[in-house]
Amino acid sequence: MKKNDGERPLLLLSNDDGFAARGLNFLIDVLEPTCDLIVVAPDAPRSGASCAFTCAQPLTYRKVAQRPHVSIYACSGTPVDCVKMGLNLLCRERRPDMVVAGVNHGDNASVNTHYSGTMGVAREGALQGIPAIAFSLCDYSAEADFEPLRPYVAELVDRTLAAGLPPMTCLNVNFPGGRKTFEGVRLCRMGLSRWQNEVEPRRHPYGRDYYWLAGESVNLEPDAPDTDRRALEEGWVAVTPTSLDVTDYSLLESLRATF
Amino acid sequence: MKKNDGERPLLLLSNDDGFAARGLNFLIDVLEPTCDLIVVAPDAPRSGASCAFTCAQPLTYRKVAQRPHVSIYACSGTPVDCVKMGLNLLCRERRPDMVVAGVNHGDNASVNTHYSGTMGVAREGALQGIPAIAFSLCDYSAEADFEPLRPYVAELVDRTLAAGLPPMTCLNVNFPGGRKTFEGVRLCRMGLSRWQNEVEPRRHPYGRDYYWLAGESVNLEPDAPDTDRRALEEGWVAVTPTSLDVTDYSLLESLRATF
Repeated sequence: MKKNDGERPLLLLSNDDGFAARGLNFLIDVLEPTCDLIVVAPDAPRSGASCAFTCAQPLTYRKVAQRPHVSIYACSGTPVDCVKMGLNLLCRERRPDMVVAGVNHGDNASVNTHYSGTMGVAREGALQGIPAIAFSLCDYSAEADFEPLRPYVAELVDRTLAAGLPPMTCLNVNFPGGRKTFEGVRLCRMGLSRWQNEVEPRRHPYGRDYYWLAGESVNLEPDAPDTDRRALEEGWVAVTPTSLDVTDYSLLESLRATF
Repeated sequence: MKKNDGERPLLLLSNDDGFAARGLNFLIDVLEPTCDLIVVAPDAPRSGASCAFTCAQPLTYRKVAQRPHVSIYACSGTPVDCVKMGLNLLCRERRPDMVVAGVNHGDNASVNTHYSGTMGVAREGALQGIPAIAFSLCDYSAEADFEPLRPYVAELVDRTLAAGLPPMTCLNVNFPGGRKTFEGVRLCRMGLSRWQNEVEPRRHPYGRDYYWLAGESVNLEPDAPDTDRRALEEGWVAVTPTSLDVTDYSLLESLRATF
Protein backbone atom coordinates (compact mmCIF):
# COMPACT_ATOMS: atom_id res chain seq x y z
CA MET A 1 0.00 0.00 0.00
CA LYS A 2 2.93 2.37 -0.64
CA LYS A 3 2.44 5.33 -2.92
CA ASN A 4 4.84 5.93 -5.83
CA ASP A 5 7.11 8.09 -3.70
CA GLY A 6 7.27 5.41 -1.01
CA GLU A 7 5.17 7.52 1.34
CA ARG A 8 2.36 5.87 3.26
CA PRO A 9 -1.03 6.94 1.96
CA LEU A 10 -3.03 9.23 4.26
CA LEU A 11 -6.57 8.05 5.03
CA LEU A 12 -9.29 10.01 6.83
CA LEU A 13 -11.52 7.60 8.77
CA SER A 14 -14.89 8.12 10.39
CA ASN A 15 -18.09 6.25 11.20
CA ASP A 16 -21.51 6.77 12.74
CA ASP A 17 -21.20 4.43 15.73
CA GLY A 18 -18.68 6.65 17.52
CA PHE A 19 -14.92 6.61 18.10
CA ALA A 20 -15.12 3.73 20.59
CA ALA A 21 -17.01 1.35 18.28
CA ARG A 22 -15.46 -2.05 17.61
CA GLY A 23 -16.08 -1.73 13.87
CA LEU A 24 -14.03 1.46 13.60
CA ASN A 25 -11.24 0.06 15.73
CA PHE A 26 -11.18 -3.06 13.54
CA LEU A 27 -10.83 -0.79 10.48
CA ILE A 28 -7.95 1.05 12.16
CA ASP A 29 -6.32 -2.29 12.99
CA VAL A 30 -6.50 -3.41 9.34
CA LEU A 31 -5.07 -0.18 7.92
CA GLU A 32 -2.58 0.98 10.58
CA PRO A 33 0.30 -1.27 9.40
CA THR A 34 0.43 0.32 5.94
CA CYS A 35 -1.25 3.74 6.07
CA ASP A 36 -1.19 7.01 7.98
CA LEU A 37 -4.60 7.42 9.61
CA ILE A 38 -6.44 10.49 10.86
CA VAL A 39 -9.60 9.32 12.58
CA VAL A 40 -12.34 11.84 13.39
CA ALA A 41 -15.41 10.06 14.69
CA PRO A 42 -18.50 11.10 16.65
CA ASP A 43 -18.08 11.16 20.44
CA ALA A 44 -21.16 8.90 20.76
CA PRO A 45 -23.35 6.87 18.37
CA ARG A 46 -25.05 8.82 15.54
CA SER A 47 -26.85 6.05 13.65
CA GLY A 48 -29.28 7.20 10.97
CA ALA A 49 -27.55 10.57 10.57
CA SER A 50 -27.46 10.41 6.76
CA CYS A 51 -25.66 13.50 5.36
CA ALA A 52 -26.89 15.68 8.23
CA PHE A 53 -24.52 18.45 9.28
CA THR A 54 -24.69 20.81 12.24
CA CYS A 55 -25.31 24.48 11.53
CA ALA A 56 -27.27 25.68 14.58
CA GLN A 57 -24.81 24.49 17.24
CA PRO A 58 -21.05 24.94 17.51
CA LEU A 59 -18.80 21.87 17.30
CA THR A 60 -15.94 20.72 19.48
CA TYR A 61 -13.39 17.91 19.23
CA ARG A 62 -10.66 16.38 21.35
CA LYS A 63 -7.77 14.01 20.73
CA VAL A 64 -8.37 10.61 22.33
CA ALA A 65 -5.35 8.63 21.05
CA GLN A 66 -2.03 9.20 19.30
CA ARG A 67 0.32 6.55 17.95
CA PRO A 68 3.10 6.82 15.35
CA HIS A 69 0.78 6.46 12.35
CA VAL A 70 -2.64 7.06 13.92
CA SER A 71 -4.35 10.11 15.46
CA ILE A 72 -7.85 9.62 16.82
CA TYR A 73 -10.26 12.45 17.59
CA ALA A 74 -13.77 12.45 19.06
CA CYS A 75 -16.08 15.15 17.67
CA SER A 76 -19.37 16.45 19.05
CA GLY A 77 -21.06 16.43 15.64
CA THR A 78 -22.51 14.14 12.99
CA PRO A 79 -20.49 11.83 10.72
CA VAL A 80 -20.48 14.50 7.98
CA ASP A 81 -19.37 17.10 10.54
CA CYS A 82 -16.46 14.79 11.43
CA VAL A 83 -15.29 14.69 7.81
CA LYS A 84 -15.61 18.47 7.46
CA MET A 85 -13.70 19.04 10.74
CA GLY A 86 -11.04 16.54 9.67
CA LEU A 87 -10.50 18.05 6.24
CA ASN A 88 -10.60 21.68 7.36
CA LEU A 89 -8.68 21.46 10.64
CA LEU A 90 -6.54 18.31 10.67
CA CYS A 91 -5.69 17.63 7.01
CA ARG A 92 -4.76 21.14 5.93
CA GLU A 93 -1.12 20.32 5.27
CA ARG A 94 -1.72 17.00 3.56
CA ARG A 95 -4.89 16.13 1.67
CA PRO A 96 -6.11 12.58 2.37
CA ASP A 97 -5.71 10.05 -0.42
CA MET A 98 -8.99 8.47 0.63
CA VAL A 99 -11.93 8.73 3.03
CA VAL A 100 -12.95 5.42 4.62
CA ALA A 101 -16.12 4.91 6.69
CA GLY A 102 -17.10 2.16 9.10
CA VAL A 103 -17.01 -0.64 9.67
CA ASN A 104 -20.66 0.00 10.49
CA HIS A 105 -22.48 -2.25 12.93
CA GLY A 106 -25.47 -2.98 10.69
CA ASP A 107 -26.88 -3.10 7.17
CA ASN A 108 -26.46 -0.13 4.81
CA ALA A 109 -27.56 -1.86 1.60
CA SER A 110 -30.62 -1.04 -0.50
CA VAL A 111 -32.53 2.12 0.52
CA ASN A 112 -30.67 2.20 3.85
CA THR A 113 -27.95 4.00 1.90
CA HIS A 114 -30.09 7.15 2.15
CA TYR A 115 -30.31 7.07 5.94
CA SER A 116 -26.83 5.82 6.70
CA GLY A 117 -24.37 8.04 8.55
CA THR A 118 -21.64 5.66 7.40
CA MET A 119 -22.58 6.43 3.81
CA GLY A 120 -22.77 10.09 4.87
CA VAL A 121 -19.03 9.90 5.57
CA ALA A 122 -18.30 8.37 2.16
CA ARG A 123 -20.61 10.77 0.37
CA GLU A 124 -18.93 13.75 2.06
CA GLY A 125 -15.55 12.46 0.94
CA ALA A 126 -16.79 12.10 -2.65
CA LEU A 127 -18.35 15.58 -2.56
CA GLN A 128 -14.91 16.90 -1.60
CA GLY A 129 -13.35 15.11 -4.55
CA ILE A 130 -11.68 12.35 -2.54
CA PRO A 131 -12.10 8.62 -3.32
CA ALA A 132 -14.31 7.14 -0.61
CA ILE A 133 -15.57 3.76 0.60
CA ALA A 134 -18.15 2.88 3.25
CA PHE A 135 -17.91 -0.55 4.90
CA SER A 136 -20.83 -2.12 6.77
CA LEU A 137 -21.36 -5.52 8.38
CA CYS A 138 -24.97 -6.72 8.36
CA ASP A 139 -24.82 -7.81 11.99
CA TYR A 140 -26.08 -5.67 14.87
CA SER A 141 -24.89 -7.96 17.68
CA ALA A 142 -22.31 -6.68 20.14
CA GLU A 143 -20.26 -9.84 19.56
CA ALA A 144 -20.22 -9.50 15.77
CA ASP A 145 -17.03 -11.01 14.33
CA PHE A 146 -15.26 -8.50 12.06
CA GLU A 147 -12.19 -10.69 11.45
CA PRO A 148 -13.54 -12.39 8.27
CA LEU A 149 -13.74 -8.94 6.64
CA ARG A 150 -9.99 -8.26 6.97
CA PRO A 151 -8.67 -9.37 3.56
CA TYR A 152 -11.61 -7.76 1.72
CA VAL A 153 -11.27 -4.41 3.49
CA ALA A 154 -7.52 -4.38 2.84
CA GLU A 155 -7.92 -5.30 -0.83
CA LEU A 156 -10.75 -2.87 -1.57
CA VAL A 157 -8.84 0.01 0.03
CA ASP A 158 -5.67 -1.02 -1.82
CA ARG A 159 -7.44 -1.23 -5.20
CA THR A 160 -9.13 2.12 -4.68
CA LEU A 161 -5.89 3.80 -3.65
CA ALA A 162 -4.27 2.45 -6.81
CA ALA A 163 -7.08 3.06 -9.30
CA GLY A 164 -9.03 5.94 -7.74
CA LEU A 165 -12.71 6.46 -8.40
CA PRO A 166 -14.47 8.75 -10.90
CA PRO A 167 -15.55 12.17 -9.59
CA MET A 168 -18.84 12.24 -7.65
CA THR A 169 -18.84 8.51 -6.92
CA CYS A 170 -18.11 6.30 -3.93
CA LEU A 171 -18.41 2.64 -3.00
CA ASN A 172 -21.00 1.23 -0.60
CA VAL A 173 -19.63 -2.12 0.63
CA ASN A 174 -21.83 -4.44 2.73
CA PHE A 175 -20.79 -7.77 4.25
CA PRO A 176 -23.36 -10.46 5.09
CA GLY A 177 -23.54 -11.13 8.82
CA GLY A 178 -22.90 -14.32 10.75
CA ARG A 179 -20.30 -15.83 8.40
CA LYS A 180 -16.68 -16.92 8.80
CA THR A 181 -16.04 -16.73 5.06
CA PHE A 182 -17.60 -15.02 2.04
CA GLU A 183 -18.22 -16.24 -1.50
CA GLY A 184 -16.19 -13.32 -2.86
CA VAL A 185 -16.91 -9.80 -4.10
CA ARG A 186 -20.00 -9.13 -6.21
CA LEU A 187 -20.59 -5.80 -7.94
CA CYS A 188 -24.26 -4.95 -7.72
CA ARG A 189 -26.89 -2.26 -7.91
CA MET A 190 -28.93 -0.78 -5.05
CA GLY A 191 -31.95 -3.02 -4.52
CA LEU A 192 -35.38 -1.52 -4.01
CA SER A 193 -37.06 -2.05 -0.67
CA ARG A 194 -39.50 -0.22 1.56
CA TRP A 195 -39.66 0.26 5.31
CA GLN A 196 -43.11 -0.30 6.81
CA ASN A 197 -44.81 -0.31 10.23
CA GLU A 198 -42.16 2.13 11.32
CA VAL A 199 -43.77 3.77 14.34
CA GLU A 200 -44.30 1.95 17.65
CA PRO A 201 -46.31 3.75 20.35
CA ARG A 202 -45.41 3.58 24.05
CA ARG A 203 -46.95 5.11 27.16
CA HIS A 204 -44.86 7.20 29.57
CA PRO A 205 -45.41 6.50 33.32
CA TYR A 206 -47.19 9.87 33.55
CA GLY A 207 -49.60 8.88 30.78
CA ARG A 208 -48.16 10.73 27.82
CA ASP A 209 -47.68 8.95 24.49
CA TYR A 210 -44.30 8.67 22.82
CA TYR A 211 -43.10 6.78 19.77
CA TRP A 212 -40.11 4.73 18.65
CA LEU A 213 -39.07 4.48 15.03
CA ALA A 214 -38.54 0.82 14.20
CA GLY A 215 -40.29 -1.21 11.49
CA GLU A 216 -39.35 -3.87 8.99
CA SER A 217 -37.84 -3.66 5.53
CA VAL A 218 -39.66 -5.33 2.62
CA ASN A 219 -37.64 -6.36 -0.44
CA LEU A 220 -39.57 -5.00 -3.46
CA GLU A 221 -37.65 -7.11 -5.97
CA PRO A 222 -36.81 -10.43 -4.29
CA ASP A 223 -36.31 -12.18 -7.64
CA ALA A 224 -33.83 -9.70 -9.12
CA PRO A 225 -30.40 -11.33 -9.50
CA ASP A 226 -28.28 -8.16 -9.52
CA THR A 227 -29.16 -6.32 -6.29
CA ASP A 228 -27.01 -5.75 -3.23
CA ARG A 229 -29.70 -7.49 -1.17
CA ARG A 230 -29.48 -10.65 -3.30
CA ALA A 231 -25.68 -10.65 -3.12
CA LEU A 232 -25.85 -10.48 0.68
CA GLU A 233 -28.45 -13.24 0.86
CA GLU A 234 -26.15 -15.48 -1.16
CA GLY A 235 -23.09 -14.83 1.01
CA TRP A 236 -21.23 -12.36 -1.21
CA VAL A 237 -19.56 -9.10 -0.30
CA ALA A 238 -21.87 -6.57 -1.95
CA VAL A 239 -20.07 -3.63 -3.60
CA THR A 240 -22.52 -0.99 -4.85
CA PRO A 241 -21.01 1.84 -6.93
CA THR A 242 -22.86 4.94 -5.78
CA SER A 243 -23.38 8.26 -7.54
CA LEU A 244 -23.42 11.67 -5.91
CA ASP A 245 -25.05 13.11 -9.03
CA VAL A 246 -28.67 12.34 -8.16
CA THR A 247 -30.17 13.82 -11.34
CA ASP A 248 -32.69 11.40 -12.84
CA TYR A 249 -31.69 11.79 -16.49
CA SER A 250 -34.43 9.51 -17.73
CA LEU A 251 -37.12 11.56 -16.00
CA LEU A 252 -35.42 14.75 -17.18
CA GLU A 253 -35.84 13.61 -20.79
CA SER A 254 -39.44 12.49 -20.41
CA LEU A 255 -40.46 15.72 -18.63
CA ARG A 256 -38.93 17.82 -21.41
CA ALA A 257 -41.77 16.63 -23.62
CA THR A 258 -44.37 18.12 -21.28
CA PHE A 259 -42.83 21.47 -20.24
CA MET B 1 -57.24 20.10 -8.38
CA LYS B 2 -60.15 17.66 -7.97
CA LYS B 3 -59.47 13.97 -8.31
CA ASN B 4 -61.56 11.84 -10.68
CA ASP B 5 -64.06 11.05 -7.93
CA GLY B 6 -64.42 14.75 -7.09
CA GLU B 7 -62.60 14.26 -3.79
CA ARG B 8 -59.95 16.74 -2.78
CA PRO B 9 -56.47 15.25 -3.02
CA LEU B 10 -54.73 14.54 0.29
CA LEU B 11 -51.26 16.03 0.65
CA LEU B 12 -48.76 15.38 3.44
CA LEU B 13 -46.65 18.50 4.01
CA SER B 14 -43.45 18.99 5.97
CA ASN B 15 -40.29 21.09 5.96
CA ASP B 16 -37.04 21.53 7.83
CA ASP B 17 -37.54 25.07 9.12
CA GLY B 18 -40.27 24.06 11.58
CA PHE B 19 -44.06 24.32 11.71
CA ALA B 20 -44.00 28.07 12.35
CA ALA B 21 -41.86 28.93 9.31
CA ARG B 22 -43.27 31.45 6.84
CA GLY B 23 -42.35 29.26 3.87
CA LEU B 24 -44.42 26.34 5.14
CA ASN B 25 -47.36 28.56 5.96
CA PHE B 26 -47.16 30.07 2.48
CA LEU B 27 -47.28 26.54 1.04
CA ILE B 28 -50.34 25.77 3.16
CA ASP B 29 -51.95 29.00 1.98
CA VAL B 30 -51.43 28.06 -1.68
CA LEU B 31 -52.80 24.54 -1.33
CA GLU B 32 -55.55 24.87 1.31
CA PRO B 33 -58.25 26.11 -1.12
CA THR B 34 -58.11 22.94 -3.23
CA CYS B 35 -56.55 20.13 -1.18
CA ASP B 36 -56.84 18.34 2.13
CA LEU B 37 -53.61 18.92 4.03
CA ILE B 38 -51.97 17.01 6.84
CA VAL B 39 -48.94 18.97 7.98
CA VAL B 40 -46.35 17.31 10.23
CA ALA B 41 -43.36 19.58 10.68
CA PRO B 42 -40.47 19.80 13.16
CA ASP B 43 -41.23 21.72 16.35
CA ALA B 44 -38.13 23.89 15.71
CA PRO B 45 -35.70 24.43 12.83
CA ARG B 46 -33.81 21.35 11.58
CA SER B 47 -31.79 22.77 8.70
CA GLY B 48 -29.15 20.44 7.26
CA ALA B 49 -30.91 17.31 8.51
CA SER B 50 -30.66 15.46 5.18
CA CYS B 51 -32.41 12.06 5.44
CA ALA B 52 -31.50 11.71 9.13
CA PHE B 53 -34.01 9.83 11.25
CA THR B 54 -34.16 9.37 15.01
CA CYS B 55 -33.56 5.89 16.39
CA ALA B 56 -31.90 6.50 19.77
CA GLN B 57 -34.56 8.85 21.18
CA PRO B 58 -38.34 8.51 21.30
CA LEU B 59 -40.48 10.94 19.33
CA THR B 60 -43.51 13.00 20.33
CA TYR B 61 -45.95 15.19 18.43
CA ARG B 62 -48.83 17.54 19.20
CA LYS B 63 -51.58 19.18 17.17
CA VAL B 64 -51.05 22.93 16.81
CA ALA B 65 -53.90 23.87 14.43
CA GLN B 66 -57.06 22.39 12.96
CA ARG B 67 -59.22 23.89 10.21
CA PRO B 68 -61.76 22.22 7.91
CA HIS B 69 -59.17 21.01 5.37
CA VAL B 70 -55.93 21.41 7.33
CA SER B 71 -54.43 19.67 10.36
CA ILE B 72 -51.06 20.90 11.58
CA TYR B 73 -48.80 18.92 13.93
CA ALA B 74 -45.44 19.77 15.48
CA CYS B 75 -43.08 16.82 15.92
CA SER B 76 -39.96 16.51 18.06
CA GLY B 77 -37.97 14.79 15.29
CA THR B 78 -36.25 15.40 11.98
CA PRO B 79 -38.00 16.13 8.66
CA VAL B 80 -37.83 12.44 7.74
CA ASP B 81 -39.23 11.52 11.16
CA CYS B 82 -42.15 13.87 10.46
CA VAL B 83 -43.00 12.04 7.23
CA LYS B 84 -42.73 8.66 8.94
CA MET B 85 -44.93 9.83 11.83
CA GLY B 86 -47.43 11.33 9.40
CA LEU B 87 -47.69 8.24 7.22
CA ASN B 88 -47.78 5.73 10.08
CA LEU B 89 -49.99 7.58 12.58
CA LEU B 90 -52.03 10.23 10.77
CA CYS B 91 -52.54 8.87 7.24
CA ARG B 92 -53.44 5.30 8.07
CA GLU B 93 -57.00 5.55 6.75
CA ARG B 94 -56.16 7.49 3.63
CA ARG B 95 -52.82 7.34 1.86
CA PRO B 96 -51.59 10.78 0.71
CA ASP B 97 -51.67 11.47 -3.01
CA MET B 98 -48.47 13.45 -2.65
CA VAL B 99 -45.77 14.55 -0.22
CA VAL B 100 -44.81 18.23 -0.51
CA ALA B 101 -41.83 19.83 1.26
CA GLY B 102 -41.01 23.46 1.95
CA VAL B 103 -41.07 26.15 0.97
CA ASN B 104 -37.52 26.13 2.32
CA HIS B 105 -35.86 29.35 3.37
CA GLY B 106 -32.66 28.87 1.36
CA ASP B 107 -30.95 27.19 -1.56
CA ASN B 108 -31.23 23.42 -2.05
CA ALA B 109 -29.82 23.25 -5.59
CA SER B 110 -26.60 21.52 -6.66
CA VAL B 111 -24.87 19.41 -3.99
CA ASN B 112 -27.02 21.04 -1.29
CA THR B 113 -29.59 18.41 -2.25
CA HIS B 114 -27.55 15.91 -0.20
CA TYR B 115 -27.67 17.95 3.01
CA SER B 116 -31.18 19.33 2.69
CA GLY B 117 -33.85 18.34 5.19
CA THR B 118 -36.41 19.70 2.73
CA MET B 119 -35.16 17.21 0.18
CA GLY B 120 -35.16 14.63 3.00
CA VAL B 121 -38.94 15.05 3.15
CA ALA B 122 -39.33 14.58 -0.60
CA ARG B 123 -36.93 11.64 -0.66
CA GLU B 124 -38.82 9.96 2.18
CA GLY B 125 -42.06 10.38 0.25
CA ALA B 126 -40.51 8.85 -2.85
CA LEU B 127 -39.04 5.96 -0.83
CA GLN B 128 -42.58 5.25 0.37
CA GLY B 129 -43.84 5.20 -3.23
CA ILE B 130 -45.61 8.57 -3.09
CA PRO B 131 -45.02 11.35 -5.66
CA ALA B 132 -43.03 14.08 -3.94
CA ILE B 133 -41.80 17.62 -4.57
CA ALA B 134 -39.45 19.82 -2.55
CA PHE B 135 -39.76 23.60 -2.96
CA SER B 136 -36.97 25.98 -1.92
CA LEU B 137 -36.50 29.73 -2.29
CA CYS B 138 -32.87 30.84 -2.61
CA ASP B 139 -33.30 33.66 -0.12
CA TYR B 140 -32.32 33.38 3.55
CA SER B 141 -33.70 36.77 4.63
CA ALA B 142 -36.51 36.88 7.20
CA GLU B 143 -38.44 39.20 4.88
CA ALA B 144 -38.17 36.96 1.82
CA ASP B 145 -41.20 37.43 -0.46
CA PHE B 146 -42.81 34.06 -1.25
CA GLU B 147 -45.75 35.51 -3.17
CA PRO B 148 -44.11 35.35 -6.63
CA LEU B 149 -43.85 31.56 -6.20
CA ARG B 150 -47.62 31.07 -5.92
CA PRO B 151 -48.59 30.20 -9.51
CA TYR B 152 -45.56 27.94 -9.96
CA VAL B 153 -46.14 26.00 -6.75
CA ALA B 154 -49.81 25.54 -7.62
CA GLU B 155 -49.06 24.41 -11.17
CA LEU B 156 -46.24 22.03 -10.28
CA VAL B 157 -48.35 20.36 -7.59
CA ASP B 158 -51.31 20.20 -9.98
CA ARG B 159 -49.27 18.66 -12.80
CA THR B 160 -47.71 16.13 -10.47
CA LEU B 161 -51.06 15.15 -9.00
CA ALA B 162 -52.36 14.61 -12.53
CA ALA B 163 -49.36 12.85 -14.08
CA GLY B 164 -47.64 11.26 -11.10
CA LEU B 165 -43.92 10.56 -11.04
CA PRO B 166 -42.00 7.35 -11.83
CA PRO B 167 -41.14 5.13 -8.84
CA MET B 168 -38.05 6.18 -6.87
CA THR B 169 -38.01 9.74 -8.19
CA CYS B 170 -38.94 13.15 -6.86
CA LEU B 171 -38.63 16.77 -7.97
CA ASN B 172 -36.23 19.30 -6.43
CA VAL B 173 -37.62 22.77 -7.24
CA ASN B 174 -35.56 25.88 -6.48
CA PHE B 175 -36.64 29.49 -7.02
CA PRO B 176 -34.10 32.30 -7.48
CA GLY B 177 -34.23 34.83 -4.65
CA GLY B 178 -34.96 38.53 -4.74
CA ARG B 179 -37.30 38.52 -7.76
CA LYS B 180 -40.91 39.58 -8.29
CA THR B 181 -41.23 37.43 -11.43
CA PHE B 182 -39.45 34.44 -12.95
CA GLU B 183 -38.48 33.65 -16.54
CA GLY B 184 -40.46 30.40 -16.36
CA VAL B 185 -39.72 26.77 -15.50
CA ARG B 186 -36.47 25.18 -16.68
CA LEU B 187 -35.79 21.46 -16.34
CA CYS B 188 -32.19 20.92 -15.38
CA ARG B 189 -29.62 18.61 -13.92
CA MET B 190 -27.90 18.88 -10.55
CA GLY B 191 -24.89 21.15 -10.98
CA LEU B 192 -21.54 20.23 -9.46
CA SER B 193 -20.16 22.45 -6.76
CA ARG B 194 -17.96 22.13 -3.70
CA TRP B 195 -18.15 23.68 -0.24
CA GLN B 196 -14.82 25.02 1.04
CA ASN B 197 -13.42 26.85 4.08
CA GLU B 198 -16.21 25.25 6.05
CA VAL B 199 -14.92 25.47 9.61
CA GLU B 200 -14.62 28.76 11.51
CA PRO B 201 -12.90 28.68 14.93
CA ARG B 202 -14.10 30.74 17.89
CA ARG B 203 -12.89 31.10 21.47
CA HIS B 204 -15.22 30.53 24.43
CA PRO B 205 -14.97 33.08 27.28
CA TYR B 206 -13.30 30.36 29.39
CA GLY B 207 -10.63 29.82 26.75
CA ARG B 208 -11.88 26.67 25.04
CA ASP B 209 -12.01 26.43 21.26
CA TYR B 210 -15.24 25.73 19.40
CA TYR B 211 -16.13 25.72 15.73
CA TRP B 212 -18.95 26.83 13.45
CA LEU B 213 -19.67 25.12 10.14
CA ALA B 214 -20.04 27.80 7.49
CA GLY B 215 -18.01 28.16 4.27
CA GLU B 216 -18.67 29.12 0.68
CA SER B 217 -19.88 27.09 -2.28
CA VAL B 218 -17.76 27.04 -5.45
CA ASN B 219 -19.48 26.27 -8.76
CA LEU B 220 -17.33 23.59 -10.43
CA GLU B 221 -18.96 24.03 -13.83
CA PRO B 222 -19.86 27.71 -14.20
CA ASP B 223 -20.01 27.47 -18.02
CA ALA B 224 -22.42 24.51 -18.21
CA PRO B 225 -25.76 25.61 -19.69
CA ASP B 226 -27.94 22.84 -18.24
CA THR B 227 -27.40 22.97 -14.46
CA ASP B 228 -29.83 24.04 -11.76
CA ARG B 229 -27.29 26.67 -10.68
CA ARG B 230 -27.24 28.22 -14.16
CA ALA B 231 -31.05 28.24 -14.34
CA LEU B 232 -31.22 30.08 -11.01
CA GLU B 233 -28.56 32.59 -12.06
CA GLU B 234 -30.63 33.38 -15.16
CA GLY B 235 -33.89 33.88 -13.24
CA TRP B 236 -35.61 30.58 -14.01
CA VAL B 237 -37.44 28.23 -11.67
CA ALA B 238 -35.04 25.26 -11.56
CA VAL B 239 -36.76 21.85 -11.59
CA THR B 240 -34.29 19.01 -11.06
CA PRO B 241 -35.67 15.48 -11.47
CA THR B 242 -34.01 13.47 -8.72
CA SER B 243 -33.42 9.74 -8.44
CA LEU B 244 -33.62 7.67 -5.27
CA ASP B 245 -31.74 4.86 -7.02
CA VAL B 246 -28.20 6.07 -6.37
CA THR B 247 -26.47 3.21 -8.17
CA ASP B 248 -23.76 4.54 -10.47
CA TYR B 249 -24.44 2.26 -13.45
CA SER B 250 -21.55 3.64 -15.47
CA LEU B 251 -19.07 2.87 -12.69
CA LEU B 252 -20.73 -0.50 -12.18
CA GLU B 253 -19.97 -1.41 -15.80
CA SER B 254 -16.39 -0.17 -15.73
CA LEU B 255 -15.62 -1.96 -12.46
CA ARG B 256 -16.94 -5.24 -13.86
CA ALA B 257 -13.87 -5.30 -16.10
CA THR B 258 -11.54 -5.28 -13.10
CA PHE B 259 -13.24 -7.64 -10.64
